Amino acid sequence: MLIVQKFGGTSVGDTDRIKNVANRIKSYYERGHSLIVVVSAMGHTTDELIDKAMALNEDPPRREMDMLLVTGEQISMALMAMALNAVEVPAISFTGGQLQILTDGKHSNARIRDVDTTRLKEALAQKKVCIVAGFQGIDENQEIMTLGRGGSDTTAVALAVAIKADQCEIYTDVDGVYTTDPNKVPAARKMSHICYEEMLELASMGAGVLHNRSVELASKFNVIIQVRSSFNYNDGTLVVPEEQIMDMEKVTVRGVSLKSDQARISAHDIPDKPGLAAGLFGKMSAASINVDMIVQSTGDQNKNTISFTVPAGDLSQARSVLEAFLAEIGGGRIAVDQSIAIVSAVGVGMKSHSGVAATMFQALAKENINIEMISTSEIRISVVVHKDQSRKALEAVHRAFGLGGDA
Amino acid sequence: MLIVQKFGGTSVGDTDRIKNVANRIKSYYERGHSLIVVVSAMGHTTDELIDKAMALNEDPPRREMDMLLVTGEQISMALMAMALNAVEVPAISFTGGQLQILTDGKHSNARIRDVDTTRLKEALAQKKVCIVAGFQGIDENQEIMTLGRGGSDTTAVALAVAIKADQCEIYTDVDGVYTTDPNKVPAARKMSHICYEEMLELASMGAGVLHNRSVELASKFNVIIQVRSSFNYNDGTLVVPEEQIMDMEKVTVRGVSLKSDQARISAHDIPDKPGLAAGLFGKMSAASINVDMIVQSTGDQNKNTISFTVPAGDLSQARSVLEAFLAEIGGGRIAVDQSIAIVSAVGVGMKSHSGVAATMFQALAKENINIEMISTSEIRISVVVHKDQSRKALEAVHRAFGLGGDA
Repeated sequence: MLIVQKFGGTSVGDTDRIKNVANRIKSYYERGHSLIVVVSAMGHTTDELIDKAMALNEDPPRREMDMLLVTGEQISMALMAMALNAVEVPAISFTGGQLQILTDGKHSNARIRDVDTTRLKEALAQKKVCIVAGFQGIDENQEIMTLGRGGSDTTAVALAVAIKADQCEIYTDVDGVYTTDPNKVPAARKMSHICYEEMLELASMGAGVLHNRSVELASKFNVIIQVRSSFNYNDGTLVVPEEQIMDMEKVTVRGVSLKSDQARISAHDIPDKPGLAAGLFGKMSAASINVDMIVQSTGDQNKNTISFTVPAGDLSQARSVLEAFLAEIGGGRIAVDQSIAIVSAVGVGMKSHSGVAATMFQALAKENINIEMISTSEIRISVVVHKDQSRKALEAVHRAFGLGGDA
Repeated sequence: MLIVQKFGGTSVGDTDRIKNVANRIKSYYERGHSLIVVVSAMGHTTDELIDKAMALNEDPPRREMDMLLVTGEQISMALMAMALNAVEVPAISFTGGQLQILTDGKHSNARIRDVDTTRLKEALAQKKVCIVAGFQGIDENQEIMTLGRGGSDTTAVALAVAIKADQCEIYTDVDGVYTTDPNKVPAARKMSHICYEEMLELASMGAGVLHNRSVELASKFNVIIQVRSSFNYNDGTLVVPEEQIMDMEKVTVRGVSLKSDQARISAHDIPDKPGLAAGLFGKMSAASINVDMIVQSTGDQNKNTISFTVPAGDLSQARSVLEAFLAEIGGGRIAVDQSIAIVSAVGVGMKSHSGVAATMFQALAKENINIEMISTSEIRISVVVHKDQSRKALEAVHRAFGLGGDA
């Protein structure tokens, strides 16, 4: 089989861990598999490089930041190739530039456009393990680009697509994707499967296991990803197309997530005019404020209320934008609540099952948890609750959908 | 003026030093100069990377070692560009690959063949300072190559040649090239000038200030190098073609050097056959043993003695090679002396002055220092003395040629 494996920063955190990973790769190699291995920077290397940069320039040019950060993956890549050669597995490393991992020209957040597989195929034909620096590419002017934090996942999926790999494994420090955060809900269970859409919704709701673009790319080309631990040989979680989830594995809710460090802003008594929401959230977007849930309601006398949530760090900026907007349209008063959290239930099964929202609301009511806002998508229900009740809410929803233990 | 400046590892040892260098570059930039700046890896970065490699593989593939080590210069380069941008000097960094610094395909010790100056010229035309990663290049297959330790000097000279720079400055942690090592002889004086040939002879005799290939390259293209300190604004030492040294600066001996950690091996009573030396030193060369001084003498009864010096670290291997050789030709006995050092006097003035050797030998005799071996080139006289007398010998020779103080 042709397998792409990606090892994250924790998995290659020091030379001992690199040796462990080399031995794992060797066990695959000896079973006759062809291997392409994508590596991230070792442990805290990226943070240390950023600290050095900040000591010299608090607003460094993005191009130079990319030049700096790609060295982290290059160090891992060369060391991994050496570790493999030391255990008699022929290995060769490649930078993004050497593989012509072609991206657009957006420094620090580039998107992969194309990968030239010539050198990989040559090396594989010579029975070599290919080690590839994750997170990096080049544009058509040979400028060095990075793919954004977590971008090595995307490198792995892009290589799997380009070379038509049979498998794509993303190694990390947890056993797979869990029904919810096991640090918060001990009953959380590792999923055997999850589909792309569910993974994306969970990630956007705060359960970050895979880089979002890697899931989008996998979804586009139907690449199955296995998320698993580099510290044991347990089966991980398969991220698959929806239609590949067998009926018996189909559940209405796949997982629940908790997003903390959020704030809610409400504007009351604002004049009811067409295009109000478009105007406000256009300005928020222009200020790069990441608005999450939005609820609009019409009160009496044609006065409106708009409430929305933002990350706590964006609160003061969001408030300024809102104040300016209200001054412009004439009227409205602002209320802010920083004691909130968002609990979400995600599952493609919701599309064909009714009553999911009702089950969730009943579970919360039973625990006397007040729901302050509700928003839904086709495969997600999110509620805003008081921060102090968020852990209890997460547990209640997790239990209500039978996600705990061996259920 | 178009100036190439190279800053060594000590000069960019930490972020504070990088800031200092950035301010120095800024002062040149503000005087209207066009600048190309070559940087080495920060301080001990290269050694730390080598330690990591050794922890994984005691004999790492040279290709992967090159992949690893080039990251050191890449980090310096990006940080320097950031530091310059922070003090409002527009700067852009380039890897060896981006500049197409084309080398032969010899990993860890590649030679530069060509440099494409297109991108440098574009950036200079935009009034940007160009920061270039030293020590690295690529071959025609885009394989990453390093130029050997100290190779950043060669990068600087090669860029100066390619872009026809007006000046080439090599910044280091000393004020220039000294008549001898000031740590050993306090009377040592900084030279204002030295010619290429003298610099090469002194370097090969243990006074390592510049990478040898950088001097060879400078000599070939008549590039004048200034060696100076990055910690002050003192004039350094100019390394120039012989004909540019004015008459009044002409001296018979430019500098003296001491090479310790040497061993002498002698083979006595070996049969006198033609091709003996060629046979023996061919084998030494094949074993990559770096033989320095060689003296052959014919004794009575057609028996020969051959003595030669090698670095102490090569002694046991050299002895084995010699033993095998003597067994082959039938005869001879071996003597080894590890208590030696080599003192050399270097100067192009020797070519036209007689009596230099006599002055040197008299100076040593006066101090009761026994000369154990002598070897000469056109511009160098080297003697082997007992290790315990080496410091005294160095001082005596330095004084005898009037090199100390303000002389």
